[in-house]
Amino acid sequence: MGNTDVGYMAGTGVEMSRRVPIPPARSFFDTFCSNLKETFFPDDPFRQFKKEKGGRRAIRALQYFFPILEWAPSYTFSFFRADLIAGITIASLAIPQGISYAKLANLPPILGLYSSFVPPLVYAMLGSSKDLAVGTVAVPSLLIGSMLGKEVSAAKEPVLYLQLAFTATFFAGVLQASLGLLRLGFIVDFLSHATIVGFMGGAATVVCLQQLKGIMGLEHFTTSTDLISVLRSIFSQVHQWKWESVVLGCGFLSFLLATRILSKRRAKFFWLSAAAPLTSVVLGSLLVYLSHAESHGVQVIGHLKKGLNPLSLTGLIFSPPHMILALKTGMITGIIALAEGIAVGRSFAMFKNYHIDGNKEMIAFGAMNIAGSLTSCYLTTGPFSRSAVNYNAGCKTAMSNVVMAVAVMITLLLLTPLFHYTPLVVLSSIILSAMLGLIDYEAAFHLLKVDKVDFCVCIGAFIGVVFGSVEIGLVVAVLASILRVLLFIARPRTTILGNIPNSMAYRRIDQYPGAQSISGVLVLGIDAPIYFANSNYLRERIFRWIEEEEERLRVNEKTSLHYVILDMGAVTSIDTSGISMMKETKKALEKRDLQLLLANPGTEVMKKLNNSKVLEIIGHDWIFLTVADAVGACTFMLHTAKAENLIRENGPNDGNIV
Amino acid sequence: MGNTDVGYMAGTGVEMSRRVPIPPARSFFDTFCSNLKETFFPDDPFRQFKKEKGGRRAIRALQYFFPILEWAPSYTFSFFRADLIAGITIASLAIPQGISYAKLANLPPILGLYSSFVPPLVYAMLGSSKDLAVGTVAVPSLLIGSMLGKEVSAAKEPVLYLQLAFTATFFAGVLQASLGLLRLGFIVDFLSHATIVGFMGGAATVVCLQQLKGIMGLEHFTTSTDLISVLRSIFSQVHQWKWESVVLGCGFLSFLLATRILSKRRAKFFWLSAAAPLTSVVLGSLLVYLSHAESHGVQVIGHLKKGLNPLSLTGLIFSPPHMILALKTGMITGIIALAEGIAVGRSFAMFKNYHIDGNKEMIAFGAMNIAGSLTSCYLTTGPFSRSAVNYNAGCKTAMSNVVMAVAVMITLLLLTPLFHYTPLVVLSSIILSAMLGLIDYEAAFHLLKVDKVDFCVCIGAFIGVVFGSVEIGLVVAVLASILRVLLFIARPRTTILGNIPNSMAYRRIDQYPGAQSISGVLVLGIDAPIYFANSNYLRERIFRWIEEEEERLRVNEKTSLHYVILDMGAVTSIDTSGISMMKETKKALEKRDLQLLLANPGTEVMKKLNNSKVLEIIGHDWIFLTVADAVGACTFMLHTAKAENLIRENGPNDGNIV
Repeated sequence: MGNTDVGYMAGTGVEMSRRVPIPPARSFFDTFCSNLKETFFPDDPFRQFKKEKGGRRAIRALQYFFPILEWAPSYTFSFFRADLIAGITIASLAIPQGISYAKLANLPPILGLYSSFVPPLVYAMLGSSKDLAVGTVAVPSLLIGSMLGKEVSAAKEPVLYLQLAFTATFFAGVLQASLGLLRLGFIVDFLSHATIVGFMGGAATVVCLQQLKGIMGLEHFTTSTDLISVLRSIFSQVHQWKWESVVLGCGFLSFLLATRILSKRRAKFFWLSAAAPLTSVVLGSLLVYLSHAESHGVQVIGHLKKGLNPLSLTGLIFSPPHMILALKTGMITGIIALAEGIAVGRSFAMFKNYHIDGNKEMIAFGAMNIAGSLTSCYLTTGPFSRSAVNYNAGCKTAMSNVVMAVAVMITLLLLTPLFHYTPLVVLSSIILSAMLGLIDYEAAFHLLKVDKVDFCVCIGAFIGVVFGSVEIGLVVAVLASILRVLLFIARPRTTILGNIPNSMAYRRIDQYPGAQSISGVLVLGIDAPIYFANSNYLRERIFRWIEEEEERLRVNEKTSLHYVILDMGAVTSIDTSGISMMKETKKALEKRDLQLLLANPGTEVMKKLNNSKVLEIIGHDWIFLTVADAVGACTFMLHTAKAENLIRENGPNDGNIV
Repeated sequence: MGNTDVGYMAGTGVEMSRRVPIPPARSFFDTFCSNLKETFFPDDPFRQFKKEKGGRRAIRALQYFFPILEWAPSYTFSFFRADLIAGITIASLAIPQGISYAKLANLPPILGLYSSFVPPLVYAMLGSSKDLAVGTVAVPSLLIGSMLGKEVSAAKEPVLYLQLAFTATFFAGVLQASLGLLRLGFIVDFLSHATIVGFMGGAATVVCLQQLKGIMGLEHFTTSTDLISVLRSIFSQVHQWKWESVVLGCGFLSFLLATRILSKRRAKFFWLSAAAPLTSVVLGSLLVYLSHAESHGVQVIGHLKKGLNPLSLTGLIFSPPHMILALKTGMITGIIALAEGIAVGRSFAMFKNYHIDGNKEMIAFGAMNIAGSLTSCYLTTGPFSRSAVNYNAGCKTAMSNVVMAVAVMITLLLLTPLFHYTPLVVLSSIILSAMLGLIDYEAAFHLLKVDKVDFCVCIGAFIGVVFGSVEIGLVVAVLASILRVLLFIARPRTTILGNIPNSMAYRRIDQYPGAQSISGVLVLGIDAPIYFANSNYLRERIFRWIEEEEERLRVNEKTSLHYVILDMGAVTSIDTSGISMMKETKKALEKRDLQLLLANPGTEVMKKLNNSKVLEIIGHDWIFLTVADAVGACTFMLHTAKAENLIRENGPNDGNIV
């Protein structure tokens, strides 16, 4: 039966228009260019000014690189009013948060203010998000503190530590800008949602644990970030706990959490949670100033230098061994900051239905960090909390960042002495309340419900961060995510397809209970591209299906299998190992007297089958547009063969009569 | 239009049987077990004796683990005659090759003979291939030589070097056996065909370069394996070249190559190339013995100890720092040897149409290397050349390995003195002629023609090996292969589908020139599972398609787009990022007044859409069995809407008339 002449096909009435064509040969250069374009310029960013000419084109190009030129000309007073309110709101959040996060990175508190001045101005010129508010973030701050702290002590070598922080920021900026320029933004996509949930939850837990130092009013603390070291450090110093500090901390924390909950319940109270940190700082400072608590063990920020950012260009370190440390820190924190910033930008763009170019955003982030590293700022990005406040406060354009920068500038020039009595415990409460919001147990529960593998990735990242270190957690999560993709490729599903009654459609028998199989014909769907990683598996799995089907037919229907149809609809890509596998499968089927038919192969499969001459071995006549066509040909031939057998049994002489 | 009530659907005549069902909930444990089984036991190895009972089952199980019990009971004399001939043929190849490859690994030549005695016996009991001939192989031999040689000199510390080689073999065996036992055999599949072609070609080139030492009769030689070091080493010693050696070498090489070419032309002359190495050894030894060339600068093997393998159990080193070196060497060489052995076993099984269980083979390889490491053997596997000779000589079962082992045993006991005068240059010629066959430029050319990416991977591996080192080449090639898979996942194709005339099929418009699109309806095919790595890309790409289609419709047809149909046929898997992407796409389309329809989603997509409640957002009524059904619903609704507009334009009073 397998040797049935292909000549039969002429009789099946398959029209030429329904044959699967071999795609026309394209030059290697064409294919290469179009693949390159699809990989690196999937959004075709230059489309918009391709049609323009001369001067207009130059203006459009300038507008492309400096989005401010796009929105500034049509900026109105009503926009400005909205941005002014939003800008002042985020500034009131930025000042206490900035100081807090700088402490988290073991950097002088004033750096938090510096970092809310220069980078927002740069972003306002280059960034394409209308809602993103620039500032420092907790997790990268903690990472800078822990990674640099392993080799250089912030307490013993403050100048070197500071220089390393600037250098790390510089490298982070260079990395971000180059990823954007090289259009490698998709690297950030390899941090999956599940990874980020687990990683952020873990990192927030770690940050919270670190805050216990401030809340308890401890002076000595472990430099490790893992749960066990921190708990050991805290409980070994029970006699050092300061009750004044604990009471103050818990009080402010309750206040902050209460405002958060309130503003979550009602959107119009958003300003409550936005204003609460600054209120806490003011109240805390007043309390300390009036009660002289600083002499009763409550630590305060102390003297903050007046004046704008000093230049830090000459402080950058470009010689080993310290450069390596800064480079490593910059790479890791840069990627994490980028992932957060891009995700935040994208989410708000989706809300307001405008488009953000990820690669362009990376260039903006990179530029603002490079500029920041030269002007005494450390790593900034677009934090979710601050951007959400910005959005809720009704910002219209990136001008709200400019307003925030101006507000911070005024603070730097005039108001820094006011922070002298701000107790550190208030800063710890501010961080704690922000971090508790990052532990997204609802998202983890959602993952558990929808996708168990994603949940494992998430928990892996969380455990890695909490019990190991932030770096370990990140590596675990990224590896797990990639492993998952590779496993998917290595073990694609193959399924038996059956005909859905009253239709030409063939679908999985296990998914559609009504689907009917055809006796003597096995229809197999292959659910993935055929690659080196799965070609051996697929070949063996196909033969196992065939053996099972032959067994079933022998036992149940006393017939045998004649045709094997592979539905290639989902085989969207194939490599040379896959092509060899097709060839070997064809040959092995021939040895078993089975005929192989292909249904619905895509462009790439047809092209490669043709180039490798495997098409000749399989036979172009055995390739069909749809599974239904292939099944039609099989049943036609089965009937013909039955008729022939009948003729043969009745003797050749009767042939003419039939 | 996007807000058209779903109530319309009732009128489109979609029968319930054609709805896409939500798969019944399966317990997590069930899914987990079936996934685990498909990943680790895709061939269902225990199927064959699941049905048996009691004693028979035990026998079947024993036969499963010791295939010899399966074939030995039915072994006949005619089988033995065939195996005897094949065994003697491969022994005549094994003896000179064994000695040559041992020299390549800087090990005493006698180890090559030892290694052709114990391992084949072990394999004969445990191996399931009928054609594989066990022996040492060139590339892992070279690797052992270069990796161990970097830290321990074979000349200065011969005992330590030998012990390290045994320990490396032991670790390689343990790795191979554990991969098999843990059913992780698919790791070997990650060495793609292209990788192996490039890697083997590079390694063969490197081995050939090393042979120049023997051919030129040099005594000092670089320990590096890269092209540049070797050429520098050779040309810096031009005055040391020995013409006797060069003449002998070239003569034997021509002889060996001539027999190879002859036996390639005619299959029945296969014994010519099989016997040529032993003939060369005999001729070369005679020549040296008669001409006393050993005193004219032609190096000879020298004294070989008589007797069988001594035990080497006590020589294994299990303490750092040397253990680490042996472990590393064992891991790398073990994997490479495994890849070759498995590929060889699979190829011949395919020729003769029997099945090989890759994981069981790994256990057999592991056991033979562990046994070998205890009896003074170094790493063995199933070399392609020797197995091909075995196959051509008509072997029937693994008994040919036993015959070879016996022949080698006789050699060890009685004939070793005969090799005293064998010139090293003959061994170099034997290696050279074997290696030239491994440089498979035809395969590389085939890759270039069929798949440019595979060709790049292949050339990358080749260049890595030749200009860097064997390890670098391997790492480059594996990384490139994996990167390719990840890129495929990160940048899946999306294409516009159109109706093939006279059918219900919708296919790519760029593949099928006759396919027709439907005005007002955009049908998009997504060519890959939706994962975290591509969900952002896909969302943006879908919107770019929509914008382009809207632009086209506005300019060409003065109409607008109303429906977007996503063909989910190739979306065989989805994770939580993918689910979020579907949700966001639905919402963004709604904002643009477009209706989203899904066609042909698979089990997993439906299950996860349902679990995450995104199904409710998209609407189960907007999900169709086929693209044709979805298009049918769209055109029905477009007509209804047109009719309604007509009614509205003519005033509500005329409604009854229409």
